[in-house]
Amino acid sequence: MQFEPKARNFEARVRASFAAQGMMNTLQAKLEKVDAGQCKITAPIIPKTGQQHGFAHAGLSFSIGDSAAGYAALSLMDSLSEVVTAEIKINLIAPAKGDHLEAIGKVIRPGNRLFTVQSDVYAIDGSIRTHIAILLGTMVAVRTA
Amino acid sequence: MQFEPKARNFEARVRASFAAQGMMNTLQAKLEKVDAGQCKITAPIIPKTGQQHGFAHAGLSFSIGDSAAGYAALSLMDSLSEVVTAEIKINLIAPAKGDHLEAIGKVIRPGNRLFTVQSDVYAIDGSIRTHIAILLGTMVAVRTA
Amino acid sequence: MQFEPKARNFEARVRASFAAQGMMNTLQAKLEKVDAGQCKITAPIIPKTGQQHGFAHAGLSFSIGDSAAGYAALSLMDSLSEVVTAEIKINLIAPAKGDHLEAIGKVIRPGNRLFTVQSDVYAIDGSIRTHIAILLGTMVAVRTA
Amino acid sequence: MQFEPKARNFEARVRASFAAQGMMNTLQAKLEKVDAGQCKITAPIIPKTGQQHGFAHAGLSFSIGDSAAGYAALSLMDSLSEVVTAEIKINLIAPAKGDHLEAIGKVIRPGNRLFTVQSDVYAIDGSIRTHIAILLGTMVAVRTA
Repeated sequence: MQFEPKARNFEARVRASFAAQGMMNTLQAKLEKVDAGQCKITAPIIPKTGQQHGFAHAGLSFSIGDSAAGYAALSLMDSLSEVVTAEIKINLIAPAKGDHLEAIGKVIRPGNRLFTVQSDVYAIDGSIRTHIAILLGTMVAVRTA
Repeated sequence: MQFEPKARNFEARVRASFAAQGMMNTLQAKLEKVDAGQCKITAPIIPKTGQQHGFAHAGLSFSIGDSAAGYAALSLMDSLSEVVTAEIKINLIAPAKGDHLEAIGKVIRPGNRLFTVQSDVYAIDGSIRTHIAILLGTMVAVRTA
Repeated sequence: MQFEPKARNFEARVRASFAAQGMMNTLQAKLEKVDAGQCKITAPIIPKTGQQHGFAHAGLSFSIGDSAAGYAALSLMDSLSEVVTAEIKINLIAPAKGDHLEAIGKVIRPGNRLFTVQSDVYAIDGSIRTHIAILLGTMVAVRTA
Repeated sequence: MQFEPKARNFEARVRASFAAQGMMNTLQAKLEKVDAGQCKITAPIIPKTGQQHGFAHAGLSFSIGDSAAGYAALSLMDSLSEVVTAEIKINLIAPAKGDHLEAIGKVIRPGNRLFTVQSDVYAIDGSIRTHIAILLGTMVAVRTA
């Protein structure tokens, strides 16, 4: 779906916010792409963010999926609003194994205050791309001024 | 609720699995307590796991909440089973600010294969303890042999 | 937890709203009790609201669980607000069999606009009361004037 | 996505199960279409399944969304398995107003035991079709013999 951003500089706002997230840096996540209502974040699958079976921890898929969905929402908000996650659910559908994860977040329905969002997370293993998780949640626009 | 563990060495199994999670180490999380059907994990609120407003990232609350719930389930499984998260939802109810987070995971209903679990996450700020998140999910027992 | 209602006549408001829900009437649901931040609704387990195995349909547990949680939230809202469900999740933990279902909804955290709520649904079979479902969701206060 | 059904008579099995659901009959729901891994159910928006504002109750969207998703999963199961909902979440994104609701359930990932499913619910108001709810859940294949 096509959405109209309220702030012209939405990409700069998303990039500045992403850069301020210590967690994204710790997970070695990269903000690959920001469009109006959509956002892509990647992160490597490495031992320091792994779980006990050698795959990526659910917390890695969740963290980049949540941030991708949140920034998809922020990209549609006006320049006086910040984004906060109200709730989000993740279904893990395949093991997170391979070279890196890719989360694509998108806005399903923008509102004045509440944004319904979805993220799909894929594991990239060489040339194979597997859908490993899906997130469905609600983002809130919080006034900063 | 009181549950009967199937494996005598359930605490050792949980501790070994926790120690193998690179993510828990990266988040500086500690496994504070393991009971049959219940588990407590803490993690400091520090910039490297923060978000853009200076609070802990939702991914930190999620990661320790998910692990606490998963290990609560594992503590009730037989010694040939491993635990995997099928799905989990988090509602964030207050900002994650303070010194550290504490996640208490517990089993709501154990099954042969599926375990319904809940985690409550609290932020500890000096002497104040605030309920900041609640997770509800499903863990699966996967046969390893 | 104890909450302070904003409207004195909160019980009358909840009862009037319940009476206006055709669905509750169709399900033969009864509003048993309304407290500030808590609400109890029951419904019989009968063939017309059953599923293919002879138990109550998930839609029955959901409908009374959702309404009980929503009215728990409405009981804490001011008299110019109405309640709307933003999202809610249900985990079904045991078969819904017996004489009737009982849903107890409660507010976990009240906000200005968003209320985090939970419902527990029990099946009553003679003298046996079984926890069969748990719901976790978000209610929104919508201004009517 | 294209999925291979395990039972040849999958449509007949789904139709027989649907016909045995008293709830679907009470809601005046119709099973419009059954494909391998996908299912469409409709229901009229009428006072007897409404809520206090004159729109369809969340329980109606949930009930047909849950059944559509469950039957999408059942359509891919072998003939000795029955379907049970483990958990499902609904995000309500617009008021359920108009002539009738349409739920399209589909399997996102089939497994041996667990099926990740999604449903999209639309309200049809004359010639206007509005996306009003999205469900994400987990169905379980239960052996009947």
